[in-house]
Amino acid sequence: MPQSRPSVSPGDPISAIETAALIVDLDAFEANLKTMADYAKAQGVRVRAHAKTHKCAEIAKRQMALGAVGMCCQKVSEAVALVAGGVTDVLVSNEVLHPAKLARLAALTPKARIGLCVDSDLGLDRLLEAAAGSAAPIDAYVELEVGGNRCGVTSTADGVALAKRIAASNTLRFGGIHAYQGGAQHLRTPAERKAAIDVAISRSAELSAALTREGIEVPVVTGGGTGSFINEAGSGVYNEIQPGSYVFMDRDYADNTADLSAPRFRHSLFVLTSVMSRRADFAVIDAGLKAHSIDSGFPAIAGRPDLAFDNPSDEHGIIRGSDLPQLGETLRLIPGHCDPTVNLYDWLIAIRGDRVAEIWAVDARGALT
Amino acid sequence: MPQSRPSVSPGDPISAIETAALIVDLDAFEANLKTMADYAKAQGVRVRAHAKTHKCAEIAKRQMALGAVGMCCQKVSEAVALVAGGVTDVLVSNEVLHPAKLARLAALTPKARIGLCVDSDLGLDRLLEAAAGSAAPIDAYVELEVGGNRCGVTSTADGVALAKRIAASNTLRFGGIHAYQGGAQHLRTPAERKAAIDVAISRSAELSAALTREGIEVPVVTGGGTGSFINEAGSGVYNEIQPGSYVFMDRDYADNTADLSAPRFRHSLFVLTSVMSRRADFAVIDAGLKAHSIDSGFPAIAGRPDLAFDNPSDEHGIIRGSDLPQLGETLRLIPGHCDPTVNLYDWLIAIRGDRVAEIWAVDARGALT
Repeated sequence: MPQSRPSVSPGDPISAIETAALIVDLDAFEANLKTMADYAKAQGVRVRAHAKTHKCAEIAKRQMALGAVGMCCQKVSEAVALVAGGVTDVLVSNEVLHPAKLARLAALTPKARIGLCVDSDLGLDRLLEAAAGSAAPIDAYVELEVGGNRCGVTSTADGVALAKRIAASNTLRFGGIHAYQGGAQHLRTPAERKAAIDVAISRSAELSAALTREGIEVPVVTGGGTGSFINEAGSGVYNEIQPGSYVFMDRDYADNTADLSAPRFRHSLFVLTSVMSRRADFAVIDAGLKAHSIDSGFPAIAGRPDLAFDNPSDEHGIIRGSDLPQLGETLRLIPGHCDPTVNLYDWLIAIRGDRVAEIWAVDARGALT
Repeated sequence: MPQSRPSVSPGDPISAIETAALIVDLDAFEANLKTMADYAKAQGVRVRAHAKTHKCAEIAKRQMALGAVGMCCQKVSEAVALVAGGVTDVLVSNEVLHPAKLARLAALTPKARIGLCVDSDLGLDRLLEAAAGSAAPIDAYVELEVGGNRCGVTSTADGVALAKRIAASNTLRFGGIHAYQGGAQHLRTPAERKAAIDVAISRSAELSAALTREGIEVPVVTGGGTGSFINEAGSGVYNEIQPGSYVFMDRDYADNTADLSAPRFRHSLFVLTSVMSRRADFAVIDAGLKAHSIDSGFPAIAGRPDLAFDNPSDEHGIIRGSDLPQLGETLRLIPGHCDPTVNLYDWLIAIRGDRVAEIWAVDARGALT
């Protein structure tokens, strides 16, 4: 069940926020949005930002106000929440097979342009059934396996066959090629990331050329996350990128060695936590496994590189270091991985300086269907 | 924001459940509740079951109907949700320092018996301030460090000093000694667990004896989780145990080598997932890092020991094995760790055989303050 709106209001000091809470530094957040928008404009690529990171219609609308053509998400229930929040263009960048989910997706078409990926005949059969009842055509993208070893057709021939079926339909529009290489995002060096994306570019170009030979126009080749997007953007093959984490930047993305030609993003998302128990050699904070996700490692502590997070349990974390915080003191954790961390919260508390500025709902929190 | 109630009703087949979803096998669940209740009755110890596992008032009330004296939880906001759901006895088995949280806790006393742990003079000062406004006395427990290296006073003298202050107050009742050894729960062998709990028993007995010498009656010595409770229950020092995970049993608890004298519990909690993409050598399922917590390792696959879960990303998991499921087929994952997994869901879908039986709200989902 949802947690009630935080008991703070715009203008309140940060010290009034009850912990554990998820806070967004607006100066850093706004700088990140502008940096990506400026970069994409200069490069001449479209941005379809990924809402799986923030699950928040308010943030999506700000991204689109700065020029993003629309949003991606991964689940039909995320698309439903985003459209309910006023987002007018959503691509579910994933495969969906369940007829009830597909009917729900098709029912969004009066309010928003809707897209979905397919990588199998069964998936396309089901989408065609649902699209028969939709108010407007759905954009169907062929997902291509480009080295991430997850979803997607694995041959040009399979991609052409699916695209032909889409192009022949009256209720679907061929959206283009979905070619996201998730595994490349956290390869640590620019050279490793470039090598992985070179493979993705090559496969995408091959499918695109084959479709063109078949007389099928490819409006969009889309992919590229916060770790790799400069490679896709500069490829001449991709014309759309899908970055998500750049709005917040987590510890794991910051651990990538930066490409010097890439724009830089700041940490804007923090778990505000306080010390609940104190020993001579460690402090116990009120943010454990239910307050941030450790799948990509432990959080860093903002502004305190001398402190280390250790040994989390469900509702506790241990802080070690030489100059430990006192009982009741707060710290800001930089989450190891922002996406599953945001998914733990109903609300984002946006701050400016030392004050609460805005409170945003995490509209698609827990959206798993 | 909350996900809407699942679009299935009691009597519907399991195949109608949209994935990913969290399901509870009622036969196994009810057997687990009865097994623990029977064991505690036979041993003559109280059960104060831990709601941090399920966060569900409906389950709490069923545990109390079978004899549990009340519930534990870890956060004030969890206590608020449980009391709102009709639970009449809640111990926040943790330290709380924020005055607004403590005021909210004190405000529950007209509806429920409320307890809280303290391990510092500051914590007790704050609790006393809040208790001045409560309708009924709050039970204050002295938390004792018993080897888990987390919260709790580290000396008998400190415990006696806090208990004296509690006993001298008009607005608090001395609840007893809180002596939970979290680190012992997943020690793999019965001998390791017994050795760890022997230390906890010894420290608890020492504090209890010191309090008795001071003329302070110790009504309860409480602690013990699903991994260790037979040791506390048989100690002659603890008179209350706090098991939580026994209701569901996760993969990690099942990986403990069982003590032959301990009652056995069954897996009752599963993530229902389906195959969304299929390759020759793996299947991609729709349950990733946002559908179950991997902090204690990957899930097992119920009834399919030949299959292995691998390489999760935010919304995907990879299944490997020789006889892979087909596109659209469902699997049941046994979560690595049940507590943070339940915290990802708004609803528990209780099943009996192959049908939906009941739908329960996860009342305290996301309760972090």
